Amino acid sequence: MEEIKVFCPATIANLSCGFDVLGVALDAVGDEMIVRKTDKKGIRITKILGQELPLETDKNVAGVAALALLEKSGATSGFEIEIHKKIKPGSGIGSSAASSAGAVWGINTLLGNPFSPPELVEFAMQGEKLASGVAHADNVAPALLGGFVLVRGYEPLDIVPLPSPEELHATVIHPQIEIKTSDSRKILKTKLSLQVGIRQWGNLAGLVAGLFKNDYELIGRSLEDHVVEPIRSILIPGFDAIKSQSLQTGALGCGISGSGPSIFALSRGEATATQVAKAMKKVYETLDVAFDVHVSPVNTQGVKTLR
Amino acid sequence: MEEIKVFCPATIANLSCGFDVLGVALDAVGDEMIVRKTDKKGIRITKILGQELPLETDKNVAGVAALALLEKSGATSGFEIEIHKKIKPGSGIGSSAASSAGAVWGINTLLGNPFSPPELVEFAMQGEKLASGVAHADNVAPALLGGFVLVRGYEPLDIVPLPSPEELHATVIHPQIEIKTSDSRKILKTKLSLQVGIRQWGNLAGLVAGLFKNDYELIGRSLEDHVVEPIRSILIPGFDAIKSQSLQTGALGCGISGSGPSIFALSRGEATATQVAKAMKKVYETLDVAFDVHVSPVNTQGVKTLR
Repeated sequence: MEEIKVFCPATIANLSCGFDVLGVALDAVGDEMIVRKTDKKGIRITKILGQELPLETDKNVAGVAALALLEKSGATSGFEIEIHKKIKPGSGIGSSAASSAGAVWGINTLLGNPFSPPELVEFAMQGEKLASGVAHADNVAPALLGGFVLVRGYEPLDIVPLPSPEELHATVIHPQIEIKTSDSRKILKTKLSLQVGIRQWGNLAGLVAGLFKNDYELIGRSLEDHVVEPIRSILIPGFDAIKSQSLQTGALGCGISGSGPSIFALSRGEATATQVAKAMKKVYETLDVAFDVHVSPVNTQGVKTLR
Repeated sequence: MEEIKVFCPATIANLSCGFDVLGVALDAVGDEMIVRKTDKKGIRITKILGQELPLETDKNVAGVAALALLEKSGATSGFEIEIHKKIKPGSGIGSSAASSAGAVWGINTLLGNPFSPPELVEFAMQGEKLASGVAHADNVAPALLGGFVLVRGYEPLDIVPLPSPEELHATVIHPQIEIKTSDSRKILKTKLSLQVGIRQWGNLAGLVAGLFKNDYELIGRSLEDHVVEPIRSILIPGFDAIKSQSLQTGALGCGISGSGPSIFALSRGEATATQVAKAMKKVYETLDVAFDVHVSPVNTQGVKTLR
């Protein structure tokens, strides 16, 4: 095989109580990428459709992630990458992670899979480092492994795949406003009270238990964030209305996707998730904010071959 | 049935990263209690063996918990309680919880089980309130339900039973020193950094996942406490030596039981847990501290009938 076309899933990180440690992959939103083996060593980004992004390998997240893999592999061949960007950068649903994950997964496949999924996560994290200054794994790990993935810790990297109850569907609304990542970082408080911490880890433990038990009610009760959402949501117009409408429409929970501005809801069943999408749209139509909205089952496979 | 004799298990709460939300019941350490139905209304504590504790119903944790149940039940009969206290009060392995749990479980059984386990937890919490001023559930819930139990939150009370991997064994050493609960509370910091919080909830999520996956290595990696242990361990002589010796001997993890002074370790298999007990003993023998040591499988049943 000399060429592969892959789907690179969007991901929701910072899943409410799972701030910085929990992400999930989506199936209906993602980039497409063609990876081609060439005789010429190195990585070349030959084409980017859909967005204005740098073609220079060392300035492109897919390029940097691919280089990290290539150096470790000792491969004598090189690779060309074409990216069809469908996830908007800065939307908060893992745009850079999709590119980084797709590139390393595609190259690994063309090389005959010398690297394990956790190793691919480490390469893809280099793309995240370029994008945001921090080599975080909570988008690239679910993008590569699929489903819900816990990043227990970083020293060393500890990736824990979690089950994905079949009926879970995500609704994501992306208000087309720009929030600088640096701003959404800066406003975070560096301290929290012990009482708030206890609520947060109680909820995350409940969420993880709910995923294992297929207990949708428990998942819903646990999808609370007392640490980050009260602060970051201020930057997102209409957040409170979107959240209350989503919950009223039957969503199990609702929160900020990544560092925003996208807002996600999780629902049991596609029908409810679609109703939630309608309720979300209605809020932004009255606010006159431009938006995209997506309804998606959980992607349990991660990056996958299209051709 | 007019009389029942029950076993009331000791429990480890504040399981490392599970501070204030996670506890587990033990099978080899616990109190015994006889509960007897009488025609005379009300609750009488007729005998306490093994410890000096108040016989007045409203000053005894078992009495207070029993009264809470009795009032709600509308029963016309009354109950006598004899307690054979084998868990030392103030040891940090749920002495008051065992009495509270045993009393409500015994009376509920003699009444024909009108109340569900979560309701029994609420009654038993009244005993905890008498003992420590706080109606916490992280000892009484595992004492009643058995196994590992998550207390996700209190508004309303949300009790989540978790699986108990079969080979897990606990070693508990109780140094016979007195730490006032008020002191072990006072020294806790009321704030933590966001970075420490993220490590803590990442670890708790890993621990819960490990219990569901029967993944002993993951359980071991997750048994870390960066919030409370660094502070409270100062009050426990030899803590660092006990911990490092336990881990070197093969324990999966080691930490403070409850608010101390007992120290627990979890191991895979009874043989390792027994070796860990020997290693722990050795430390305290050199320090000239009096101690009890227990090795126990997980009690997956909670309070149980002996006769």
